[in-house]
Amino acid sequence: MGEFDLIARYFTRPARPDGAVALGVGDDCALLAPTPGMQLAISSDMLVEGRHFFADVDPDALGHKALAVNLSDLAACGARPLAFTLALSLPRVDEAWLEGFSRGMWALADAHGCELVGGDTTQGPLNICITVFGEVPPGQALLRSGARPGDDIYVSGNLGDARLALEALLGHTPLPADVLARARQRLERPTPRVALGLALRGVASSAMDVSDGLLGDLSHILKASGVGARIDTHITSKLIAASAYPSSAGALFDAELIRQCTLAGGDDYELAFTAPPTQRDAVAAASQASSTPVTRIGTVLVTPGLQLVDAQGQPVDKRYASFDHFR
Amino acid sequence: MGEFDLIARYFTRPARPDGAVALGVGDDCALLAPTPGMQLAISSDMLVEGRHFFADVDPDALGHKALAVNLSDLAACGARPLAFTLALSLPRVDEAWLEGFSRGMWALADAHGCELVGGDTTQGPLNICITVFGEVPPGQALLRSGARPGDDIYVSGNLGDARLALEALLGHTPLPADVLARARQRLERPTPRVALGLALRGVASSAMDVSDGLLGDLSHILKASGVGARIDTHITSKLIAASAYPSSAGALFDAELIRQCTLAGGDDYELAFTAPPTQRDAVAAASQASSTPVTRIGTVLVTPGLQLVDAQGQPVDKRYASFDHFR
Repeated sequence: MGEFDLIARYFTRPARPDGAVALGVGDDCALLAPTPGMQLAISSDMLVEGRHFFADVDPDALGHKALAVNLSDLAACGARPLAFTLALSLPRVDEAWLEGFSRGMWALADAHGCELVGGDTTQGPLNICITVFGEVPPGQALLRSGARPGDDIYVSGNLGDARLALEALLGHTPLPADVLARARQRLERPTPRVALGLALRGVASSAMDVSDGLLGDLSHILKASGVGARIDTHITSKLIAASAYPSSAGALFDAELIRQCTLAGGDDYELAFTAPPTQRDAVAAASQASSTPVTRIGTVLVTPGLQLVDAQGQPVDKRYASFDHFR
Repeated sequence: MGEFDLIARYFTRPARPDGAVALGVGDDCALLAPTPGMQLAISSDMLVEGRHFFADVDPDALGHKALAVNLSDLAACGARPLAFTLALSLPRVDEAWLEGFSRGMWALADAHGCELVGGDTTQGPLNICITVFGEVPPGQALLRSGARPGDDIYVSGNLGDARLALEALLGHTPLPADVLARARQRLERPTPRVALGLALRGVASSAMDVSDGLLGDLSHILKASGVGARIDTHITSKLIAASAYPSSAGALFDAELIRQCTLAGGDDYELAFTAPPTQRDAVAAASQASSTPVTRIGTVLVTPGLQLVDAQGQPVDKRYASFDHFR
């Protein structure tokens, strides 16, 4: 199968006539016609074998995740997904792999009305680069720079399960099979919080998605906003779903592993965001409207830096380093 | 140096206040505000070490080329460049390499007023994925599907020098040093024909950029337009610049090598386009306005297929295969 047959078979579908895509796959460029007056939100993520995923990962899950991590960036800005491009470097043409990968990708794309409009395929070490486009009314994008002292700090959904699965898959931590299976779903099939991001427009003062670990990502908000924060670790520690499974009860996890996974785990693809206390009802309404649980985990402070406190309000001294590709 | 320092040092500059970029590098998404009513043209290309470039290529040239091949796609659509994202997988942080790569990239970006708005960096085998954004008035994009029987076929600039350089660098063909040096410039620093593409709006009936080889790329126009073509190989053979250098005179190149390089060389990044004979003056004016030479090389036919003819109008029987990553 040649390059163009491959694109035609796995990565080409007719554009929907009512969408923002004026011209899809097959010419030198795709043509997008955003709603007049809207801004275009753009994000790009590159996934590398051995770095972001295991060589033997289910290709369906990989197709899902490659798009999910990009949609998560749109969610963090409160942008509505429109379209994406896919650039793919493949060691060889493996039809079973392409079939699975494209299936996982299309399923998530369809769920969000996000159309594949173009891209590139080449031979080389497995590498997936997706660039995603969404739209947002001018001035309404959720940015990292809007957090103000006194704001509440929230996170959506669960934290730490993806990292827990990774630790188990790497052989660092034993896990019961059912716990691993569920945690692995979180690692391999993250849920981009697109509906929550849209519902938080005009409500949240700042937002970003948690991809490298809660504290590291939160520190980007704090730096961009020129503020500090206090985080209640007894609350964040409860956000790891696995600890609630009956088979995980008791000694399975120590408190330190849970803190590591929830505070600096990475691969969560939840939204961390801030909002003034006057918006608590609006945050609850956004959570309900988007069917996405959110938890208040701390407060924005005037003093720069991140303070971690335990259930008694006492400082937690340990530092939790976030993921960095070159450290 | 960590991931975020690397991005800050080499890949972040303030967005120009008068441009289409509402928010550049540093948040979850970039925000683009295209001119109201314009369509957004999008293209993405991935370059892999050992496949698209040699491991020891000058990083400045590579930074240029990685963006140039994307701008060439915008040129082929007649779109004005606005912005691009860069996703980069690097084996390690090599500051000299990053310094050179970013210098070459910025120089070309500045020449076209095209801003870097975001992207991704990760560790892995060297891989460069750029996605570029331009704008074009609705209905004015140059497409592959507009060629009509009787149209003239044109190509810009020169053909075949990039392939000739590649053959020499691979040790397949000996070349005098000065000829190689100039041909190598064409391989490593292609010139995206952006100004010509803009000038051809409303003039050309179809267009695309020549990246995989003239005949293969032209066949995409023919297929999309449902037509055939006759190409004058005695004209295309003269488009290789190297054959005109004094030191290349005589026996340096055989006619067959020249045909191979000009018809199926690849990496030319010229524009191939069609226009009705009534537009010959307009094509000449577009050429002049953009300071880009163009040459009429053939005619669009009703009968599908590509006919190659020599100076006597006799058929050239040999087939020239274009580049395909998976064949």
